[in-house]
Amino acid sequence: MSRKLYELVGRDADRPFSPHCWKARLALKHKGLDFETVPVPFTEIPRIEGGASKIVPLLKDGERMVADSFLIAEYLEEAYPDAPTLFGGEGGRRLARFVEAWSTATIHAALPGFVIMDIHDILAETDQAYFRQSREARMGRALEAVVEGREARVEGFVKSLAPLRRMIEAQPFLGGESPLFADYIVFGAFQWLRVVSAFPLLPAGDPVAVWFERCLDLYEGHGRAVPAAADAA
Amino acid sequence: MSRKLYELVGRDADRPFSPHCWKARLALKHKGLDFETVPVPFTEIPRIEGGASKIVPLLKDGERMVADSFLIAEYLEEAYPDAPTLFGGEGGRRLARFVEAWSTATIHAALPGFVIMDIHDILAETDQAYFRQSREARMGRALEAVVEGREARVEGFVKSLAPLRRMIEAQPFLGGESPLFADYIVFGAFQWLRVVSAFPLLPAGDPVAVWFERCLDLYEGHGRAVPAAADAA
Repeated sequence: MSRKLYELVGRDADRPFSPHCWKARLALKHKGLDFETVPVPFTEIPRIEGGASKIVPLLKDGERMVADSFLIAEYLEEAYPDAPTLFGGEGGRRLARFVEAWSTATIHAALPGFVIMDIHDILAETDQAYFRQSREARMGRALEAVVEGREARVEGFVKSLAPLRRMIEAQPFLGGESPLFADYIVFGAFQWLRVVSAFPLLPAGDPVAVWFERCLDLYEGHGRAVPAAADAA
Repeated sequence: MSRKLYELVGRDADRPFSPHCWKARLALKHKGLDFETVPVPFTEIPRIEGGASKIVPLLKDGERMVADSFLIAEYLEEAYPDAPTLFGGEGGRRLARFVEAWSTATIHAALPGFVIMDIHDILAETDQAYFRQSREARMGRALEAVVEGREARVEGFVKSLAPLRRMIEAQPFLGGESPLFADYIVFGAFQWLRVVSAFPLLPAGDPVAVWFERCLDLYEGHGRAVPAAADAA
């Protein structure tokens, strides 16, 4: 097959967990494209395709290589214009960046405070050392300290999802009746959580949890094919 | 003229302040449409056009009447398809709702805590009574208590604008090189603040403040034609 998605894994090559890689996966499924995935641990990323990228996901489509989930979605939209649209036009492409900015500031900023030790724990030994060193340097404290007192932060986090909740109370997806890349942007964050940690963050009846389950059902349950940490444990 | 926008005012009919009415104003300017505005105080809203609407903005375009800023934008997009687009396609229309949900949860939810007394103070006497009663009932405390200790909340508020800030650090408008209705959604909230209150909320050099000034410049400084409370005081 000539289409390869390089994506991040820990010790278990069958449990990709990077939010950004999941965004790219669903973008490919959305376009109806076949692809094979190539699992890569943190410390092997610099060696992919002879040093082609410092980050994953990296998509190799024939001879073309694109790294970064948003750029991959933009590439797919342009390269496969006859397949279902990921953005719904130029305005949708622009505002998907707003959804990304919101997801980054709200979900990605908060999740390490809940699950960074779980991420650490699923990595292979070499990657654990790299992960601890790089993250502790960035955050200025021990990984253990980052998750300390996480129970007390759950309520504030759940509340911070208000804009998403308001949208999906009114319709199945951010994109309306069917998903757009904007949905996958937020899905990626919750799938990250689901694959790495059994920590219960979203109340089951929360509209956000219902929407997430709906996203897991997409493309014959593609996202569900990797069991939740809560079930895998 | 056959196009009328009914919009909220206080004692001074020349100082419309409703965020939603400003969204509708800029949507009309964006489409290059002429319109006249009809100032309406809170307690007169039920009498507009013989009771046509419980809310403003209300647009009367010929015989067609549309209330609610988002519905007005959707109406204009459909009725004037050859004028510049407000949404940039269906995806942009869908995700503009996300920007609206974010603005509601983040900015509209916070602003009363800074300026609800200022809003009260610019209203005519009859409207002040209505405003105090309805808002105090909704919020369960005196208006004076709502703004108490507001200085301590500024930093958190400024920080909560991160998704917007991230977007406009990278480009002039949420819409990219030029604005979309999504820009006006957020502009409306800050124009509300600007018209009703001299309370300094945004640091001058904040990218959000820079973007807001850029929005004030649009359409020959349309938003600037109503002086800021800080200057009018």
